[in-house]
Amino acid sequence: MEFKIKANDESARLGRLLTPHGEVETPVFMPVGTAASVKGVAQDILDDLGVQILLGNTYHLYLRPGIERVRKLGGLHGFMSWNHAILTDSGGFQVFSLNELRKVTEEGVTFRSHLDGSSHFFSAESATEAQIGLGADIIMAFDECTEYPAEPQRVRESMELTLRWAERSKKRFEEHKHDVPWAEVSESGPLDFADRFASESIRSARDDKGLGVGPGELRPSVRTQALFGIVQGGTDPRLRRESAERTIEIGFSGYAIGGLSVGEPRALTREIVESTLEHLPADRPRYLMGVGSPEEIVEYAHLGVDMMDCVLPTRAARHGLLFTSEGKISIKQARYADDAGPLDPICACRVCSRYSRAYLRHLYAANEVLAQVLNTIHNLSFYLDTMRRVRHSIELGRKARSLSEVWSLPEQ
Amino acid sequence: MEFKIKANDESARLGRLLTPHGEVETPVFMPVGTAASVKGVAQDILDDLGVQILLGNTYHLYLRPGIERVRKLGGLHGFMSWNHAILTDSGGFQVFSLNELRKVTEEGVTFRSHLDGSSHFFSAESATEAQIGLGADIIMAFDECTEYPAEPQRVRESMELTLRWAERSKKRFEEHKHDVPWAEVSESGPLDFADRFASESIRSARDDKGLGVGPGELRPSVRTQALFGIVQGGTDPRLRRESAERTIEIGFSGYAIGGLSVGEPRALTREIVESTLEHLPADRPRYLMGVGSPEEIVEYAHLGVDMMDCVLPTRAARHGLLFTSEGKISIKQARYADDAGPLDPICACRVCSRYSRAYLRHLYAANEVLAQVLNTIHNLSFYLDTMRRVRHSIELGRKARSLSEVWSLPEQ
Repeated sequence: MEFKIKANDESARLGRLLTPHGEVETPVFMPVGTAASVKGVAQDILDDLGVQILLGNTYHLYLRPGIERVRKLGGLHGFMSWNHAILTDSGGFQVFSLNELRKVTEEGVTFRSHLDGSSHFFSAESATEAQIGLGADIIMAFDECTEYPAEPQRVRESMELTLRWAERSKKRFEEHKHDVPWAEVSESGPLDFADRFASESIRSARDDKGLGVGPGELRPSVRTQALFGIVQGGTDPRLRRESAERTIEIGFSGYAIGGLSVGEPRALTREIVESTLEHLPADRPRYLMGVGSPEEIVEYAHLGVDMMDCVLPTRAARHGLLFTSEGKISIKQARYADDAGPLDPICACRVCSRYSRAYLRHLYAANEVLAQVLNTIHNLSFYLDTMRRVRHSIELGRKARSLSEVWSLPEQ
Repeated sequence: MEFKIKANDESARLGRLLTPHGEVETPVFMPVGTAASVKGVAQDILDDLGVQILLGNTYHLYLRPGIERVRKLGGLHGFMSWNHAILTDSGGFQVFSLNELRKVTEEGVTFRSHLDGSSHFFSAESATEAQIGLGADIIMAFDECTEYPAEPQRVRESMELTLRWAERSKKRFEEHKHDVPWAEVSESGPLDFADRFASESIRSARDDKGLGVGPGELRPSVRTQALFGIVQGGTDPRLRRESAERTIEIGFSGYAIGGLSVGEPRALTREIVESTLEHLPADRPRYLMGVGSPEEIVEYAHLGVDMMDCVLPTRAARHGLLFTSEGKISIKQARYADDAGPLDPICACRVCSRYSRAYLRHLYAANEVLAQVLNTIHNLSFYLDTMRRVRHSIELGRKARSLSEVWSLPEQ
């Protein structure tokens, strides 16, 4: 993986991440496609929205449809027919958030499936192998997400465990990184999943239109996945610093800040992010996991975060909560029932260009599936436009620190 | 409304329906958009699929969001931002199918809302006014859908009632047809809902991109809605003939065959359709309501039906039942879990071009909303392609009588 910084604006950085499946302009917001789908939104619409990188959840994909199945179908890219970059998490966070009965040992975590209660085990090695099988462009070291609040001793022990798992993750990654589903193809030229996985007869019937969209020529420098390490350490700035320094010592292609947005006050999140960022190398991408609101993604980009992900835009959409340049709108409210205006007057997305608030309110009130589809498209569009404006602002050196500043800049 | 027949192939007719909102090539299958939405599919995708006419349900729209609300927002076209033709039913069928406690009198039907149990009343006059308020291009006379089976005396009385309601519907339509939401605009030039309903400030902020898509110039001949009559008469060919003749005597722009597909055997449906068609005028469109499977729509088009609608493609899609050129597929089956091939090898829709059966099976099994979205798009595409092939076959005089014959013709 290559990472180039093109411009700086105070702490903020405008960068370009080169992955085996294309470029990603940073700072970037990554939509969450938990089970190989951004809920309700087809991949061609994500293309149109300009999504350059998606996040998939290893925990969910491991349980259903299963790693081996996805691997045989061309990895996550081939399976879901997504031609741009993908990042998978290690499963550590879901084991933490979806399993009250998990059991953590030095070796790994035993947990129960939220689907059927069956018992499973993740170790640094198996979580890394699972992510190699899924074949995302960026994968994460296996970590323990420390709960909040926690005693100092507990936070230190958890951080130490994450560091040992980080070493084991890296070791297993180095041994197996060439097992990625697209590695053998990438040696011999452009990827084409259809060539590998669809039968001859099907392809000829389809008149050369293969299933799965293959990326173009791979660059020699980006022919394998990149492994990121995760900084833990709870809400103690000294432990965070130690975790950062020792994770950097192990050596990764990028560094994530994990274990935040787990219930602690927002001001504390910001304080920990800011102090941790100081200890991360400037020439590697910095990924803040599970953050945040539109205001927060602008703020953290300004602090120097390059990558973020959050379920908020997609989950809020399903509950009728819509983000606009004029603030949040709860579209279920009766006040919008006769409102002929667009959701957001200055948004150019396909929802705001075509439908009225009255129609969106009706769809939500009538429990129409299209409500979820359109609401999600708009919220993602708003997040992506916000980050596009943040990048433009960095390029121009405008020092935009807040959402309202970003949205009052003249358009690109 | 204008209707022109361009070619005949035995009983089948290739025609063109000119409506205030564009042309409709017949025979046509009309997707059902019950509550101003084809469940899960955005209007721009319906555009791409080549949908020229949609069906809306007056009963549902009357209950939610309400007729007056839709009228003020530009009628159904403006409300849902749909620029092509729309047909609304009279509400008679839903009152019949969704209300076990309905009470029918000479004056009309008292029924309870399936949403909240509240009591409502539809008469020939109020159902006609509701449809004028919704502003569909084609609206239907209010009828009683006779149940099956029914005693001969009951079928006759029900048919007589429908005939009296047909006269009353026509009278009210003639008195009020200029009250259609777009009538006043159509007198003075092209329709533009944005001009009427979006505020100046919103429009200027949106840089001339108005909400709601206005149709082009209206033709003088098609500046009002068209009212269709409905033939009833149960499964008695003599009563059907009498109903047809007396409905024609009242005089409508087109004629529908109602009261079928309500539980009678399929062979009987076909027999009644065939015998009824003989008594309908050749120069007016013939609409068979609530039919049918892919096999049936081909068969009925061959018999001389011009218009059909059915919830089958959209409802079946939600249950994972997919129609293909090779037959029906239940995508939930485990046999598709590792199937890298496309759903239908010779279908060119955006689903078959991009996704594998394995992915579609996964989406369904994981209860992902995208399953419903993609399945519905494919099924609609299959229905619309089938009718496109039927029209092509009529044009070439190929006498294709069955679905398999239609799909083995060389492509257009």
